Amino acid sequence: MKLKETMIRRTKEVRGVAVGFRIDHVRLPNGKTAVREYLDHPGAVAVVPIVEKDKIVMVRQYRHPVRKITWEIPAGKLSKGEIPLHCVKRELKEETGATAKKITKLLSFWPTPAFANEIIHIYAAEQLTFGKSQLDFDEFLDVAVWPLKKVLKEIKEGRIKDSKTVIGLLAYESWRR
Amino acid sequence: MKLKETMIRRTKEVRGVAVGFRIDHVRLPNGKTAVREYLDHPGAVAVVPIVEKDKIVMVRQYRHPVRKITWEIPAGKLSKGEIPLHCVKRELKEETGATAKKITKLLSFWPTPAFANEIIHIYAAEQLTFGKSQLDFDEFLDVAVWPLKKVLKEIKEGRIKDSKTVIGLLAYESWRR
Repeated sequence: MKLKETMIRRTKEVRGVAVGFRIDHVRLPNGKTAVREYLDHPGAVAVVPIVEKDKIVMVRQYRHPVRKITWEIPAGKLSKGEIPLHCVKRELKEETGATAKKITKLLSFWPTPAFANEIIHIYAAEQLTFGKSQLDFDEFLDVAVWPLKKVLKEIKEGRIKDSKTVIGLLAYESWRR
Repeated sequence: MKLKETMIRRTKEVRGVAVGFRIDHVRLPNGKTAVREYLDHPGAVAVVPIVEKDKIVMVRQYRHPVRKITWEIPAGKLSKGEIPLHCVKRELKEETGATAKKITKLLSFWPTPAFANEIIHIYAAEQLTFGKSQLDFDEFLDVAVWPLKKVLKEIKEGRIKDSKTVIGLLAYESWRR
């Protein structure tokens, strides 16, 4: 089946400070038109910081959109022009104070490709040394070291729901075998 | 550390057809203010349709936000007041023509809790019988049965990047052991 849609025009664009919102009119494969509404996002990185093979550094913070305090792996938005690996090192240092000797790519994923252009690149960070964290002015978070088994249990039981954390940990657990 | 932010006021709300966009001003734990920009989404379901223990039904469609044709597990937005299990049955039938005798919950996740209130509930569907699919007017998709191993390989090699597909398949593979 022909699947590709083609852009007709953008009928709305809201530019926020961190992200934006777009409404595009597109031409469907059968010639009709449809509306596509989505978040415009610069992309992000996330990192699974491994203290020992079975211990992970996690951060806890408030997420206003879901109105919940969440445990997640460290992560952050890409700055303009920033390469993902640089962003990983920066966010790991800012949020947990850690510096890693070894950083390897796990995978990249689209959180919600029907409603956002956001891509998240996930890395594993090993051989960590810890210094002082340097949070952004609007960032408030707690840091803790979790047994990998506990994180996997919280995912399975539905208490950890953040996609990058679920994917990062399931991929790490699945692929290191 | 005190983490919770409190709502001051909503300074922008865009209501689209399927989703919307909000800008909220919040009070930080230290009394300062910050801006939170996010997608307003009604929630969705996704389903891992299992033909045999090692074969999965996948759908291929164009995703305008990322400008790519993607292979994903069947999924769809919750209609107003719809319970997730009903939505799973509806979307499975609409997109693949399948009816399942056995449907079990895998997990729920937030694709991007910093920038959307979207939650996706993932189910596994087994004991399938196939009839005719009934696509929405603006839906164009191909259906195919994939070996589970091939889906997992495509995830690992970065060719399948959709979060619900990655999480659904990694969770199914991890938990059925």
